[in-house]
Amino acid sequence: MIESILIANRGEIAVRVVRACKDLGIRSVVAYSTADKETLAVRMADQAVCIGGPTSKESYLQSRNIIMAACLTRCDAIHPGVGFLSENAAFAKAVEDSGLIFIGPKSETIALLGNKVQARKAALKAGLPITPGSKEAIVDLEDAKQTAKQIGYPIILKAAAGGGGRGMRIVRKEADLAASLALAKKEALLFFADDSVHMERYLEQPRHLEVQLLSDGKGTVLHLGERDCSVQKNHQKLLEESPSPVLNDSMRKAMCNDAVRLFQELGYRSAGTVEFLLDGGAYYFMEVNARLQVEHPVSELVSGIDLVHAQIEIAQDKALRNTQDDVTCKGYSLECRINALSAGTITTCTMPSGPHVRVDTYLESGSVLSPYYDSLIAKIIIYAPNREIGLRVMLRALGEVVIEGVKTNIEEQKLLIQSRPFTSGRFSTDLYAKVIAQEKHHD
Amino acid sequence: MIESILIANRGEIAVRVVRACKDLGIRSVVAYSTADKETLAVRMADQAVCIGGPTSKESYLQSRNIIMAACLTRCDAIHPGVGFLSENAAFAKAVEDSGLIFIGPKSETIALLGNKVQARKAALKAGLPITPGSKEAIVDLEDAKQTAKQIGYPIILKAAAGGGGRGMRIVRKEADLAASLALAKKEALLFFADDSVHMERYLEQPRHLEVQLLSDGKGTVLHLGERDCSVQKNHQKLLEESPSPVLNDSMRKAMCNDAVRLFQELGYRSAGTVEFLLDGGAYYFMEVNARLQVEHPVSELVSGIDLVHAQIEIAQDKALRNTQDDVTCKGYSLECRINALSAGTITTCTMPSGPHVRVDTYLESGSVLSPYYDSLIAKIIIYAPNREIGLRVMLRALGEVVIEGVKTNIEEQKLLIQSRPFTSGRFSTDLYAKVIAQEKHHD
Repeated sequence: MIESILIANRGEIAVRVVRACKDLGIRSVVAYSTADKETLAVRMADQAVCIGGPTSKESYLQSRNIIMAACLTRCDAIHPGVGFLSENAAFAKAVEDSGLIFIGPKSETIALLGNKVQARKAALKAGLPITPGSKEAIVDLEDAKQTAKQIGYPIILKAAAGGGGRGMRIVRKEADLAASLALAKKEALLFFADDSVHMERYLEQPRHLEVQLLSDGKGTVLHLGERDCSVQKNHQKLLEESPSPVLNDSMRKAMCNDAVRLFQELGYRSAGTVEFLLDGGAYYFMEVNARLQVEHPVSELVSGIDLVHAQIEIAQDKALRNTQDDVTCKGYSLECRINALSAGTITTCTMPSGPHVRVDTYLESGSVLSPYYDSLIAKIIIYAPNREIGLRVMLRALGEVVIEGVKTNIEEQKLLIQSRPFTSGRFSTDLYAKVIAQEKHHD
Repeated sequence: MIESILIANRGEIAVRVVRACKDLGIRSVVAYSTADKETLAVRMADQAVCIGGPTSKESYLQSRNIIMAACLTRCDAIHPGVGFLSENAAFAKAVEDSGLIFIGPKSETIALLGNKVQARKAALKAGLPITPGSKEAIVDLEDAKQTAKQIGYPIILKAAAGGGGRGMRIVRKEADLAASLALAKKEALLFFADDSVHMERYLEQPRHLEVQLLSDGKGTVLHLGERDCSVQKNHQKLLEESPSPVLNDSMRKAMCNDAVRLFQELGYRSAGTVEFLLDGGAYYFMEVNARLQVEHPVSELVSGIDLVHAQIEIAQDKALRNTQDDVTCKGYSLECRINALSAGTITTCTMPSGPHVRVDTYLESGSVLSPYYDSLIAKIIIYAPNREIGLRVMLRALGEVVIEGVKTNIEEQKLLIQSRPFTSGRFSTDLYAKVIAQEKHHD
């Protein structure tokens, strides 16, 4: 049914989707900004069409230009990739309304899950554990004080329409509540055009876990196990692995089943992720990412299922042929995000290859890193029978990388992977601060 | 037990083994010729040691230099890679005698299997079907005539100590027998220092199949399914795939069980391959390759077993922990050999990456292709749920390759993969001649 897909994204994820199209015999059209004209995705695609100027606002966030580009190039469907408009309900709705297929969840599902208060309600309804917090958005300071007293400090204020770590405020005592609430509301309005804020218990040193799901919207929901994304820097994930080294089998089973139940309750369609925080022996629902995620290859390698292929199949209204019993997650996978720490032109680019290593990148010798977009330049993903071998495979893969022309975080990543907390598996979201700060102190 | 391995090889297979060492936390030492000083394997290894001049005879075939290099660099074991001394019984014996571990079969097994007459006897004893042919080496012309009359023309004369397509003569009628026998004996003496020749029925358009085995020498023999290597040019394999598109389940089972039985009979240790010819509805034992093969990644991708890791484990006298029931071959894998068609310096080298594609190569921008060694410069291996998707994945991977500075066979490989006989699965070892000749005719 789908013969041509417009890819409304850039960088490594655009290359990823172009490759999936080629694998399935589908024509690919890449929508690009003027800054991205000379990039790998544009060159690899069957066709490419410019949708605007270099800033995201002028191009990758321009719903109308994207939909027009899809119509003009006779595409049947739009793949939004990750980031940009991939989790934007209005965009998904506009795609649906224009008669095109949106490769992702239904727009109404995205809308519901985009509101954190509603998402928490849905999780509660499906029987998932949620952190103690406000049931609705905070009405006023008095409401905030009462709620904080009930759940206990420290608490965190979050923009109801938010995500990605923005518009969040941690409050440790009542005296700070008024000022923080005002700031959180202001930021929420600024970033998300909605000043609604809700409150949750703040977990000091949690693990960040997430369950990958695949759902056909016809009753079949499969989980592909969990990913542990606890290594972060300023709420940005750096390393993602599966299985998690801290989850035991009974907790894994409970968490995965919870995630499946929530997606069944939501009538969810396409690939998606349920995020959890793990604190001590308990886990709590955090949010749903109603889209593909950067770290999706980790789950592809442990399950053997191609998530982009599956997204495209499901978008054609096909029922999933597998049952949960057909999905076997085995072995170990780790993804390492390579970020640029400066702008510039790549003069040399050698990526690792050989057995057990997958590289998703758009980088080439001669690539110009533009200042307009995020700093992710490559993902190195390894697969191994177990974590011990896996960490060695990743270190040899990182050892093969040669990137000249810009600074990258590769040396930091090597330090993290070799650090004692990481190798032992016992660490939390503050690992980066501890390991890299310590290293800088030693220098 | 093994802490350091000397790798007595070059090119992509040396890189492959260095990577395996790193994965297992084993120190790697690469033995290199003066021509190979500036190569990837030398740079990646923990240590490198020059073993002689640029020709193979001065370096990679110099047993003494290699064993001395291993002793001087305090290695416990030698991995011979493929080609060169990997199937040389005298070398394996010298390694054993020097107190080092030879990562491969016992020298006596290599010696037995190196003689094609003895190998056929062993196969017959284990109950494998062999092509009609002489039971012993041909004594004289009269013996040759009698034998040829019994088995029927066309027949093929093969050097008993031979392999790799050298010293072979096809004879279609008795009038040509005397001259061909003389030539075959002369070539056998020249190439293999032994003028023994034996005779088999010649199959005109066979398929070349082989079963990959893994055996611990302690009674456990596992097969990892078959590879179909029927696409060849002058007896050199070009494309290898698993599973074979022409083998049905009952024949696959019979062939794999035959191969297992032969290895049990031989008390074989390490990875190895039993080669078969398929002609019409019947298959015949051809020979055993008592070593790793170039096309081993195909079996690694369908079985999920790392053959070099397994070789190293077995060489440490460890029993295989798996049983045949633990080995599941699923999906489809195809390897495409990229050969250089000219010498020169690589000015640009971009290899494919992303999901479902593995590249084993030693090529880099700046690599100098030396005239001393074989022309294999890279192997591109894909994995897919089935052959239809797999061929598309391979074509997209080949489409991503950019090699400048030397001529390669990539365009020929694309033609082969897209040719109607190959896509249909119905072809034999003359595919290359048919497709490429046809193409040149059209030009």
